[in-house]
Amino acid sequence: MILPIFLIFSLLSSTSNAAVQDFCVADLTGPDTPTGYVCKKPAAVTVDDFVFSGLGAGGNTSNIIKAAVTPAFADQFAGVNGLGISLARLDLAVGGVVPMHTHPGGSEVLIVISGAICAGFISSSANKVYFKSLKKGDIMVFPQGLLHFQINAGKTPALAFVSFSSERPGLQILDFALFANDLPSEIVEKTTFLDDAQVKKLKGVLGGTG
Amino acid sequence: MILPIFLIFSLLSSTSNAAVQDFCVADLTGPDTPTGYVCKKPAAVTVDDFVFSGLGAGGNTSNIIKAAVTPAFADQFAGVNGLGISLARLDLAVGGVVPMHTHPGGSEVLIVISGAICAGFISSSANKVYFKSLKKGDIMVFPQGLLHFQINAGKTPALAFVSFSSERPGLQILDFALFANDLPSEIVEKTTFLDDAQVKKLKGVLGGTG
Amino acid sequence: MILPIFLIFSLLSSTSNAAVQDFCVADLTGPDTPTGYVCKKPAAVTVDDFVFSGLGAGGNTSNIIKAAVTPAFADQFAGVNGLGISLARLDLAVGGVVPMHTHPGGSEVLIVISGAICAGFISSSANKVYFKSLKKGDIMVFPQGLLHFQINAGKTPALAFVSFSSERPGLQILDFALFANDLPSEIVEKTTFLDDAQVKKLKGVLGGTG
Amino acid sequence: MILPIFLIFSLLSSTSNAAVQDFCVADLTGPDTPTGYVCKKPAAVTVDDFVFSGLGAGGNTSNIIKAAVTPAFADQFAGVNGLGISLARLDLAVGGVVPMHTHPGGSEVLIVISGAICAGFISSSANKVYFKSLKKGDIMVFPQGLLHFQINAGKTPALAFVSFSSERPGLQILDFALFANDLPSEIVEKTTFLDDAQVKKLKGVLGGTG
Amino acid sequence: MILPIFLIFSLLSSTSNAAVQDFCVADLTGPDTPTGYVCKKPAAVTVDDFVFSGLGAGGNTSNIIKAAVTPAFADQFAGVNGLGISLARLDLAVGGVVPMHTHPGGSEVLIVISGAICAGFISSSANKVYFKSLKKGDIMVFPQGLLHFQINAGKTPALAFVSFSSERPGLQILDFALFANDLPSEIVEKTTFLDDAQVKKLKGVLGGTG
Amino acid sequence: MILPIFLIFSLLSSTSNAAVQDFCVADLTGPDTPTGYVCKKPAAVTVDDFVFSGLGAGGNTSNIIKAAVTPAFADQFAGVNGLGISLARLDLAVGGVVPMHTHPGGSEVLIVISGAICAGFISSSANKVYFKSLKKGDIMVFPQGLLHFQINAGKTPALAFVSFSSERPGLQILDFALFANDLPSEIVEKTTFLDDAQVKKLKGVLGGTG
Repeated sequence: MILPIFLIFSLLSSTSNAAVQDFCVADLTGPDTPTGYVCKKPAAVTVDDFVFSGLGAGGNTSNIIKAAVTPAFADQFAGVNGLGISLARLDLAVGGVVPMHTHPGGSEVLIVISGAICAGFISSSANKVYFKSLKKGDIMVFPQGLLHFQINAGKTPALAFVSFSSERPGLQILDFALFANDLPSEIVEKTTFLDDAQVKKLKGVLGGTG
Repeated sequence: MILPIFLIFSLLSSTSNAAVQDFCVADLTGPDTPTGYVCKKPAAVTVDDFVFSGLGAGGNTSNIIKAAVTPAFADQFAGVNGLGISLARLDLAVGGVVPMHTHPGGSEVLIVISGAICAGFISSSANKVYFKSLKKGDIMVFPQGLLHFQINAGKTPALAFVSFSSERPGLQILDFALFANDLPSEIVEKTTFLDDAQVKKLKGVLGGTG
Repeated sequence: MILPIFLIFSLLSSTSNAAVQDFCVADLTGPDTPTGYVCKKPAAVTVDDFVFSGLGAGGNTSNIIKAAVTPAFADQFAGVNGLGISLARLDLAVGGVVPMHTHPGGSEVLIVISGAICAGFISSSANKVYFKSLKKGDIMVFPQGLLHFQINAGKTPALAFVSFSSERPGLQILDFALFANDLPSEIVEKTTFLDDAQVKKLKGVLGGTG
Repeated sequence: MILPIFLIFSLLSSTSNAAVQDFCVADLTGPDTPTGYVCKKPAAVTVDDFVFSGLGAGGNTSNIIKAAVTPAFADQFAGVNGLGISLARLDLAVGGVVPMHTHPGGSEVLIVISGAICAGFISSSANKVYFKSLKKGDIMVFPQGLLHFQINAGKTPALAFVSFSSERPGLQILDFALFANDLPSEIVEKTTFLDDAQVKKLKGVLGGTG
Repeated sequence: MILPIFLIFSLLSSTSNAAVQDFCVADLTGPDTPTGYVCKKPAAVTVDDFVFSGLGAGGNTSNIIKAAVTPAFADQFAGVNGLGISLARLDLAVGGVVPMHTHPGGSEVLIVISGAICAGFISSSANKVYFKSLKKGDIMVFPQGLLHFQINAGKTPALAFVSFSSERPGLQILDFALFANDLPSEIVEKTTFLDDAQVKKLKGVLGGTG
Repeated sequence: MILPIFLIFSLLSSTSNAAVQDFCVADLTGPDTPTGYVCKKPAAVTVDDFVFSGLGAGGNTSNIIKAAVTPAFADQFAGVNGLGISLARLDLAVGGVVPMHTHPGGSEVLIVISGAICAGFISSSANKVYFKSLKKGDIMVFPQGLLHFQINAGKTPALAFVSFSSERPGLQILDFALFANDLPSEIVEKTTFLDDAQVKKLKGVLGGTG
C-alpha cells in the first residue's frame, strides 16, 4: 500500500529536493565569497555539522588579561555559515577583562551565566558611555561596530556566552590593532595623541615593531 | 562615418562591460554559496537561459492528493539564480489538495487561473487562521515561513500559478517532515502530541521508519 | 480538561504573541519608510488584506498601444507590503505592445496564460539583446533595472501575469520619461541624439512640453 | 587649555552627532514598519534600554509540556530592535519538551547550560532528520523556518539559552497552529491526513473550535 | 617580557584570525557569485589591492559626446568587491554630455570638482524631471535605476567624481541599448514609437544592425 | 490628437504612480526607523532635496588636528535617505591629521583631489596594517568598521572627498570615545592598558571627566 501513495507524492517531493537550500555548511577548503564560504555538498552533511562541543570548556585565563574568549564562528562551527548567527564563550577569572574592542561585522548580546560582569559600550554619535554591572541572568546588547568592553566585577570567576548577528562578526581588539603590528610609532602617535613612551611601552608588551 | 563615432563611445562601452552583473545564470555544476549558485560565464549565456517551458503542462494529479506542484526554481530555471524570484504551477484535480506546508525561504503569491481554490495560512503570533475561497483571477499572499494550504473548492480541476520572493523558497510539507523519514515514532509523538496509532498509520502510508 | 493544558502552554503562547511580525499590511494613511509603509495594527487585519480581486478582469486595451497593465503592488494590495513580492496583469490586444521600460526596483518573471508574446530585454554589459517568442505556459525572466518589452506576437489577444521581486518594483516607461513631461527638448535631444522633429512629434503625442 | 582643543574637534564632533544611528531602541508605542519599530528618541535612551533581566529566572514548567520558553525579543527587550539578534531562555523539567515548531523569521543557536537535551530539525529538501543528544556546553544550530524540537534527555531539569538571527524571529508551534484556533476540522484533516478523532481530541485539549 | 603576555592574548588572537572577513578582494580569475567575485586568499592581499590610481588622469574626450567616463568598479579595483561602494571619474569637455542612462544596480552621488554641470533625473512614478545646474563643490544624488544625464553647462571643461552604492552598479546607456546591437528596427520602432528613419539613422551612427 | 493617445496610456501611468518609490527623502521631523527616516511626501519633494552645496567650502582647519571633516549624510542631505550612499569633504592643512577612527555603518572610498595623503587601515583578522601615501587622483578603500586614519603627507594643504556605502555611516573617533566622556579613568585604563597619567592627560585635553 505504500507504493502507490509514495508515487502520488513523488512530484512534490522532487520539487522540494530541487528547490531548497535549507543550509550552507561551510566547505572551508573551498573559496570564500562576500557572503560566506561555498557550501559543502548536501549529501556529505551530517548532524555533526550542526553541533559544536568546543564551548564546553573554558579557555585558559592564566594570562595578563585573566580572560579567554572561545569562538564558535563559521570557521570553527561550519554549520552556521550563511545563517547570520554565531556564539562565543567568555571566561573571566577574578580581575579578568576583555579589553576595549569592536566587532566590525555584527551586533552582540551577552548573557551572564555565573559571576558578575561590568560591561559597556560607547556610542559614536555623542561618545556617550552606556555601562552597567550585570549579574547572573542579565543580558546586554552591544550594537555593531561600537567600542565595548567586559570586566569581571565580582570576587569569583565569571562565565558568559555571547551571540552575534553574523556568523563571522570579526574582532578588532584596540590594543592589538595599535600596538601588535608594524605600524610606525610615529603614525600611532599622530593618530591617537598618545605619548611616544606610552606607545613604545605597549608595543614592547604586545610585540609590535616600528 | 560609423568608425569615429564608435570610437567616441568606446570608453563608455568598456566601462559598462567591466562593471555590470546584470544577471548570474546558475552554473549548476559549480559550487553553491549562501546566496546562490556561482554564475555561468556571461559569454555562454543565451536567451534560453531566461526562458522556461516546463510549466506549460500540468503535473500528474492521479495521486492521493489529486494535486501536482511543478517548480521553476533556480534548479530548474537557472536564469532566476540571484534574482529573488521564482514560480511554480499548481494543478488541483477535483478533490485535490496541497497539504499543509511552509516555504522557509520566501513569501508566496498565488493567482487562480481556472477553477476555485480554498486557501489559507496560520499566523504565528496568534495562531489566527486567514482563509478564503478564491475564484478565477483572485490572488492571495502567504507570508514567509507560515503554514498554509490550498484545496480545490470547486467541481472542476483548478489551475494556479504561484510566485515566490526567492529563487529557491524551499518547501517543507508537514506530513513528509513528520512521517516520511526515520525520525523515531516516540519522538514524533512526544513533540506533536499525536497518538502512537496515528503516527504509525501515517508513517506506513508515507514510507517512514522508526 | 482544557483549562489546565491551556495554562501549560500559556507561556509559550505569550512568547509568540510578543515576538512575531508575520506580516506588515500597509497602512496607506501612515508614513512611508525606505523599506515600505508602516504596518496596520494586527488586530485590524483580516483575510481580505491578503486577497485581491483586481486582476480578475483585464484593463481596457482600446488605446494606442492596444495593451493594459493592471498592478497588484503594495499600493493596491496592502498585504504584500514588506514581503518582497507583487503581481500585475498584462493584456495585449492583437497588435498590442508594452513599450520599452524598466522596473528600477525589482526583477520580473512573466508567464503567458493565452496567446503568444514576443518579449526581450537588453543587457547593460554588452548591450546584448535577449528576445524570444513565447507561447502559452512559457515563462521568461527580466533582470532588475534593464530595458525590456513585450509584444503580442499572435493573431489573438494575449494574456500574461508578471511577478516582481519587490512589492513596489516601479515602472519607468521610456517614452513617458522622455516625452511626457517638461524636460526641455534641447536637453532631450542632447542626451538622446534624437532629432528635434522626432522629439517634438512625440512630445506632441504624449503631452510633453518644453 | 581644554577650550581651544575642544574647538578644534568641534567640527568632527558635530559630524558624528548628525550622521550616526548606532542603535534604534524600539518605541513600542509608535508604528511598526517592515523592518522593526520606529526608534525612541536618542536623548531618552539610557543604559537600561540595552540591559534585560527577564531571563534571570526560569518560566513555570508545571504544565503539560513541562517546559517554559522566556523570550527577550524586541517586544520585551527594546534595545535589540533593528539589530538582528535576540535571545530566549528555555527551561525543561524532567520529561519536558518544546514541541515541534518553526521560527519563520530567523535561525537559532542553542547552548545547553545544564542537563541534557535531545534536539533536532528536519530539512525541507529531503525531509532528512538531523538530531542528537546534547550535553552541557554543546551548541546546535537550527536553520531558519525548519521544523525542530527539544526534549529533556536526562534525569534532571535542563536549562538552555537560544539565540536568534532576528530580533523578532517568530514562533509557530505546530500543535497550536493546527488545533488551537477555529480552522474547521475538515480542513485540518484534508490538509494533514490526520484522522478526525485525532484532530478533535487535540482541538479539545488545546481549546480549538470548528 | 613579551613572551608571557603574548601568550596571554593568544587565544583572543586566534579568535579574530578565524572569525573575521574584513574584506573580500576580488579574485577575478575565480567564479562570480550573485553577490560578487570569490575572494583572493587573505595572505596574498597587499595594500595595493585597496589603492587604485586609474582615476588620476581623465579619459579621452575627443569623441562625439566630448566626454569620458573612467570607472573604478570591482573589475578595475578589486578591493571594493563585496563592500557596496565604487567610484568613477567623469570628464566633460566643452559641449560634452553623458547621454541618458541608468545604473540598474546602484544609486549615484556626483560631486563637481571643476566647471559647471547641468544634471538631472526622471522619476518613474510621475515622470517628473528633477534637474539643476551644478557648480564646483555641489553634489547631486541620482536614485537607483532611474534615467539621468549630465551636460557640461559651462565654457570650460568640467570634472566630476561619481560614487555608487554598489561595487558594480552597471551602466545602461539608452542609445547603446536601442541602437548599438541587432535588435530588429521593427521591434525598436514598435516599442519606442520612434520613426523608422530616426531608428535607422542612429543604428547607422552607433553600428547597430537589423 | 493628444487626448486619445493620452487616454491610451492612462492605465499604465496610474500603474507607475501607485507602485514606485523612487526615493525616500528624509522627513527629519518624523520618526526614525531601523532603515532610515520616514519619507517626505513625494508632492513636497523638489530638486533641491537632491542637491547639496555644503561641501563647496572646506571646514575650518585652524584647530589642533589641523583638519576638518564636512559631512553630507542623511541628516545634512535628506535626499540620500534610504539610498545607501553619502559623501563627506576632508580638508587637511599642512600637518593635519584625521585621527584613528571607524565608521560602524559603512565602508569608505577616499579620492585625493589635491595634495598628498598618507592613509591606512588595520585589519581585524591579523592586525595587519595596510597603509600607503596617496597622490592626487589616487583612491583608497577602507572596509566597514575597521580602524583607519588619514594624514597630510605633503607640504601643502590636502583636499579629499570620501564616499560611504551608507547614508549614515557613523563616525567613532578613538580619542573621543575614550577620553571625551565620563567613562571612569579606571575603566579606561583596565580596558586599554594605558597608563593613568596618559589617560588623565588626554581626558584633560578632550574635556573628559571621571
